[in-house]
Amino acid sequence: MDHSSAPFTPVVPDARRLGRPLGGWRLRFYTVIFEADTPAGRAFDLALIALILGSVVVVMLDSVPALRARFGPLFDTLEWGFTLLFTLEYVARLSCVQRPLRYARSFFGVIDLLAILPTYLSFLVPGLHALMDVRVLRLLRLFRILKLGAYVAEYGALGRALMASRRKILVFLSFVVMVVVVMGTLMYVVEGPANGFANIPVSVYWAITTMTTVGFGDITPKTELGRLIASVMMLLGWGTLAVPTGIVSAEFTARRIHGRPSTRTCPSCLSEGHDPEARFCSDCGAPLPPRRYGG
Amino acid sequence: MDHSSAPFTPVVPDARRLGRPLGGWRLRFYTVIFEADTPAGRAFDLALIALILGSVVVVMLDSVPALRARFGPLFDTLEWGFTLLFTLEYVARLSCVQRPLRYARSFFGVIDLLAILPTYLSFLVPGLHALMDVRVLRLLRLFRILKLGAYVAEYGALGRALMASRRKILVFLSFVVMVVVVMGTLMYVVEGPANGFANIPVSVYWAITTMTTVGFGDITPKTELGRLIASVMMLLGWGTLAVPTGIVSAEFTARRIHGRPSTRTCPSCLSEGHDPEARFCSDCGAPLPPRRYGG
Amino acid sequence: MDHSSAPFTPVVPDARRLGRPLGGWRLRFYTVIFEADTPAGRAFDLALIALILGSVVVVMLDSVPALRARFGPLFDTLEWGFTLLFTLEYVARLSCVQRPLRYARSFFGVIDLLAILPTYLSFLVPGLHALMDVRVLRLLRLFRILKLGAYVAEYGALGRALMASRRKILVFLSFVVMVVVVMGTLMYVVEGPANGFANIPVSVYWAITTMTTVGFGDITPKTELGRLIASVMMLLGWGTLAVPTGIVSAEFTARRIHGRPSTRTCPSCLSEGHDPEARFCSDCGAPLPPRRYGG
Amino acid sequence: MDHSSAPFTPVVPDARRLGRPLGGWRLRFYTVIFEADTPAGRAFDLALIALILGSVVVVMLDSVPALRARFGPLFDTLEWGFTLLFTLEYVARLSCVQRPLRYARSFFGVIDLLAILPTYLSFLVPGLHALMDVRVLRLLRLFRILKLGAYVAEYGALGRALMASRRKILVFLSFVVMVVVVMGTLMYVVEGPANGFANIPVSVYWAITTMTTVGFGDITPKTELGRLIASVMMLLGWGTLAVPTGIVSAEFTARRIHGRPSTRTCPSCLSEGHDPEARFCSDCGAPLPPRRYGG
Repeated sequence: MDHSSAPFTPVVPDARRLGRPLGGWRLRFYTVIFEADTPAGRAFDLALIALILGSVVVVMLDSVPALRARFGPLFDTLEWGFTLLFTLEYVARLSCVQRPLRYARSFFGVIDLLAILPTYLSFLVPGLHALMDVRVLRLLRLFRILKLGAYVAEYGALGRALMASRRKILVFLSFVVMVVVVMGTLMYVVEGPANGFANIPVSVYWAITTMTTVGFGDITPKTELGRLIASVMMLLGWGTLAVPTGIVSAEFTARRIHGRPSTRTCPSCLSEGHDPEARFCSDCGAPLPPRRYGG
Repeated sequence: MDHSSAPFTPVVPDARRLGRPLGGWRLRFYTVIFEADTPAGRAFDLALIALILGSVVVVMLDSVPALRARFGPLFDTLEWGFTLLFTLEYVARLSCVQRPLRYARSFFGVIDLLAILPTYLSFLVPGLHALMDVRVLRLLRLFRILKLGAYVAEYGALGRALMASRRKILVFLSFVVMVVVVMGTLMYVVEGPANGFANIPVSVYWAITTMTTVGFGDITPKTELGRLIASVMMLLGWGTLAVPTGIVSAEFTARRIHGRPSTRTCPSCLSEGHDPEARFCSDCGAPLPPRRYGG
Repeated sequence: MDHSSAPFTPVVPDARRLGRPLGGWRLRFYTVIFEADTPAGRAFDLALIALILGSVVVVMLDSVPALRARFGPLFDTLEWGFTLLFTLEYVARLSCVQRPLRYARSFFGVIDLLAILPTYLSFLVPGLHALMDVRVLRLLRLFRILKLGAYVAEYGALGRALMASRRKILVFLSFVVMVVVVMGTLMYVVEGPANGFANIPVSVYWAITTMTTVGFGDITPKTELGRLIASVMMLLGWGTLAVPTGIVSAEFTARRIHGRPSTRTCPSCLSEGHDPEARFCSDCGAPLPPRRYGG
Repeated sequence: MDHSSAPFTPVVPDARRLGRPLGGWRLRFYTVIFEADTPAGRAFDLALIALILGSVVVVMLDSVPALRARFGPLFDTLEWGFTLLFTLEYVARLSCVQRPLRYARSFFGVIDLLAILPTYLSFLVPGLHALMDVRVLRLLRLFRILKLGAYVAEYGALGRALMASRRKILVFLSFVVMVVVVMGTLMYVVEGPANGFANIPVSVYWAITTMTTVGFGDITPKTELGRLIASVMMLLGWGTLAVPTGIVSAEFTARRIHGRPSTRTCPSCLSEGHDPEARFCSDCGAPLPPRRYGG
C-alpha cells in the first residue's frame, strides 16, 4: 500500500493510477466495474452494495446461536455464495486493469482481498469467518457509486483537515500514552491486585478507561488514596479532552472561514471570497454571476 | 410529511401553508387555535401547555407501581380526560384549516395525532399507553406560544447550522458505523460468547457503547488482547469525538463571526449582514460606509 | 435575590449597592469586612478563607465513621466554633451596611446565611449538618480577596460568554429534555420493569445517563430492540454533545478574535485591534505604546 | 525546579542554561550526551530510547504474576542492569555540565533522578519498584532526539495555547471543584451510607465521576430524589464540558487564524506573522506588500 492510498485519500480512486485498459473485453469490464457513469456500471455498483449489505447481515445473524441453530445450512450456503461472487469480482478487477499489482496494493484492493480471505481461512481457523465483516468497509465505495459528489468533497475536506492536524494529534496522543502509563503504574502500586488492579497492563487499561471518560466500572479504586488519584485523573482527562477537540475545531473553523467562499470570484476585478449570498462584488461593485447551490 | 416540514423548520409553522380559513366560526376557531396574538388565542395556548404537562406527569406517575396501586382509577380518568380534550382539539384544528390534509401531514399535525393514538391503541396492546409521553413533543409549540421571538430565532439558527453541517455529520456517522461493525466483529472473534460478547450484534452494541465513551460496563473485555483492542478503540473514539464537535463548532463560529456584523446596513437598499471587509453593498452595489472595528 | 445578583455577576460585589456606611464603628467594620485594600481587611479575609476551608474539611472528616468514632467530640466542638464565628460575621455584615435587607438578599448574603443555617437546623433534622458544606461556595470571595484581578476578569469573560449563549443553551436543553422523556418512555415500553426499567421516571433517568455518555451501568438494556434503541441514542447523544460545545466555542472564539486586542489603540490614527506583539500601527505605521502584560 | 522549566517549555532544553562545558573529556561527553547532531550523539540517544522502552516493558511484564513466576530472576537482573546504566548516565550528565545543580533541578534532571530512585528505594519499600515506570516520561526527549523539528513546534504551539488559557481553565476548575463539593455533600445527605455514599469524600468522588461523564457505576443513586439530583448533575456536567473545550478551541482557533499568515514577511526587517489586514510592518513600520487572499 503506497503512501498516496492512505485511508482518507482513496475515496476517489484515481483510475489513471491503475493503468488504462488495453481495449476489447478488458475495456468493457473496466467500464462496468470501475466506472459508475454508464447504466451498466451503475447497475453493477448497486448490485455490489446489495451483496455487501446482505453478506454483512448474514454474518451477523449467523453469530446468534438461536438463528444459527435454525438457519445454519442456509447461512453457510449464502456465505459461500457471497464469497464466490466477491472472489469472481476480485479476479475480474485484477484482470481488467493494466497494472494488477498496483490495484492489489491500493487501499481498495487490500479491502477487497480482506473481504474474501476470512471465509477461505475459516477452513484452517474455524472462528475466523466472522471477520468477513471487514467487507463492510467496501461500502466506502458507496460515496463514489451513488455519485454523491458533494459527499465525496465533504469526505475529502474532513480528511484534509484531519491530515493537517495529524502532527498535533500525534503529539497529543503520545503525551496521553505517557500519562496513562505513569498513572496506571501509580494506581497499581496504590490499589494493588487485591482491588482488581491485577498487573500494570491492566492498570494502564483502567487508566485509559478513566481518562477517556468511558468508565466501564469493571475495575474501580477502593482505597481513599486511589479514589483521590482517580478524581485528579478524571478532571485531568476532562480538561485534556478539550485539546483534540480544540485542535480539530480550530482546523475546521479556519478552513470554514478562509476556505469556503474562495471559489466565488468577481468577473470584473477578480477578487475572491465573496459571501454566498452576495449579488454584487463587495470590492468593485460589479454584479456577481448567480451562485450554484450544493457546490 | 413533506420536505419543508423537517424537524428544524416547523418551529414557526407557516400559517399560509395550511390555507386561509373561510370565515365565520372557522375563522374564529382558527384565530383562537392557531394564532397567539389575541387574548383568547393566548389563553388557549397556555391552557394547552398546562394540559400537556399535566398529561405527561400523569403518565409518568402512573408507571410507578406504588402510585398506580393507590391512584390507579384517578390516573385512568385523568388520562382519558386529557385524551378526549386533545382529540377534540385535533378535530377542531382539522375542521378550521382550509387544507386539513396538509395540516394532518405537517410536522405538528403528525405529533398531534401521535399524542392521542396510544391511548386508543392501548385497547389493543395494553402496555402501549405509556407512549402517550410523545405528547411532550407538543411543547415545541411553546416557543411560538410564549412569543419567545428571540428563542425561535435561536432555534432557527441552531437548525440552520446543523442543516449546513448535515452532510459532514452524515459522512462522519457512516464512517463511525463502519468502524463500529468491524471493531465489534473483531471483539466477538477475540473475546467470544464466554466473556459476554454473545454474538456480533451484541458486540457491535458494545463497540458503540465504548466508542461513544458511554461505557455501561455490562459487557467488558476480559482477555489481554481484547483489552488492548478496547484501549485503542477508546483512544480512537476519544479523538473521533473531536470531529463532530469540530464540524459544529466551525459552523457556529463561522456564522457567529460572519453573522456578527448584521448591524452593518446598506444605506441605499437597507439590506443587512454585510461582510466586515465589504466596500460595496452585495445586494444593490451601492457603496457602503466604512465599517467600524470592534463593534 | 434580585436579578442583577445572578451567579456570574457577583464576583465583584458592587459595594455601592449595599449602601454607604454611616461612619464611626460601622465604617471601621465595613472597611475591615467588605474591603480588601487595607491591611486589616486583608488579614480578615485571609482568616476567613482559612476558617471556611477548615470548616469544610471538618465536616468532610466528620462524615467518615472511623474518624467520627475517634474524634467525634472534637469535630462537634470545632463545628460549633466555626458556626458561631460565621454567625458573628454574618451579624457584623448585616449591622455595618446601610441597607441590611439588600445585603441579606444579595447572592453572597444568601450564601452566608446558608453557610450557618444547617448547623442550627441539625437540632431539628439530625443529618442536615453535613449541608454546611455549602459554605465552600463562600470561597467565591477568594477571587476578590486575593486581588486576583486578572482571574476576576477571566471569570467575568467566562460569565459574559455563557450569558450571551444562554438562550441557545436553554433552547438546546429544552430539546434534550423532550428527547429524553420520549426515549425514556420508549425504553420503558420496550424493556419494562423486568429488565430494570422499573417506571418511566427511572427510564428517563437512564436516558439522561445514556445521552450524556455517563453510562453508570446500573440499568442496561437486555433485549435486542432495547439495545438497538440504546445504540441510536448513544450515537445521537454523541453528536448532540457537539452542539453545546459548538455554541460555547463559537462564542469564545468570536470574543477571542474580535474582542481581545480591541483595547490596543493607535495614538496616531486611533485604529484599534492591534496584535499584542505589534510595535507599530499596522494601519498608519506610527509607533504603538508598549503593551502591558497580564491585562 | 525553577519556573522556566514548567512541563511545556522544556521540550527544547536550553543547553546554555546548563552552562558550557569546560573542554577535554567533559566537552566530548557533553557533545555525545546532550547534543543530537553528531553521529555519536545520535547513536547514544537511540540507544537510550531503546533502553527506556525495554525497561518499561520489563517492569510491566514483571507485574504479571504468571510471567513473574517463570521469568522472575531474569526480570530482576534486567531491571538492575537498566538501573545501573541509567545511574551511570545520570552521573555522566551531572559531571559534564558546567552547572550540575542547575541540571539536577531542571525538568529533565528531576525526571532522570525519578527514573532510578524507585529501584534503590525498593530495598526499603518492596512494592515501590513498579514506580520505575515514571521513566517513560524520559521519552519526552524523543522529540528532540529524532530531530522532529515540526513536532517540537507543534508541542510548543500546544503548550503556548494551553498556557494562554491556563487562567481561564483554573477559574473553571475551581468552579467545578466547588460545585462537586456541594453536590457530593447533598448526595451524601440524600442517599446516605446505606446506598453506597459512605461518607462525604466518597460522595465527592462520585460527584466527580458523574460530572466528568466517566460514570463507573460502582456507586449509583437508588432513591428518587437522588436520581433527580444526579440527572441535573449529568446535564449540568454535559453543558459544563463545553466550557474547557470552548476555551481551548477559541485559543487554538485564534492562533490558527491569526497565526496562519506567518508566511507574510516584512521585506524590510524580515519579521514574520503579520496580521492579514496589516498595511505596515508592525515591527519596523515599513510598508508591507499587499497580502494575497486564500493563501
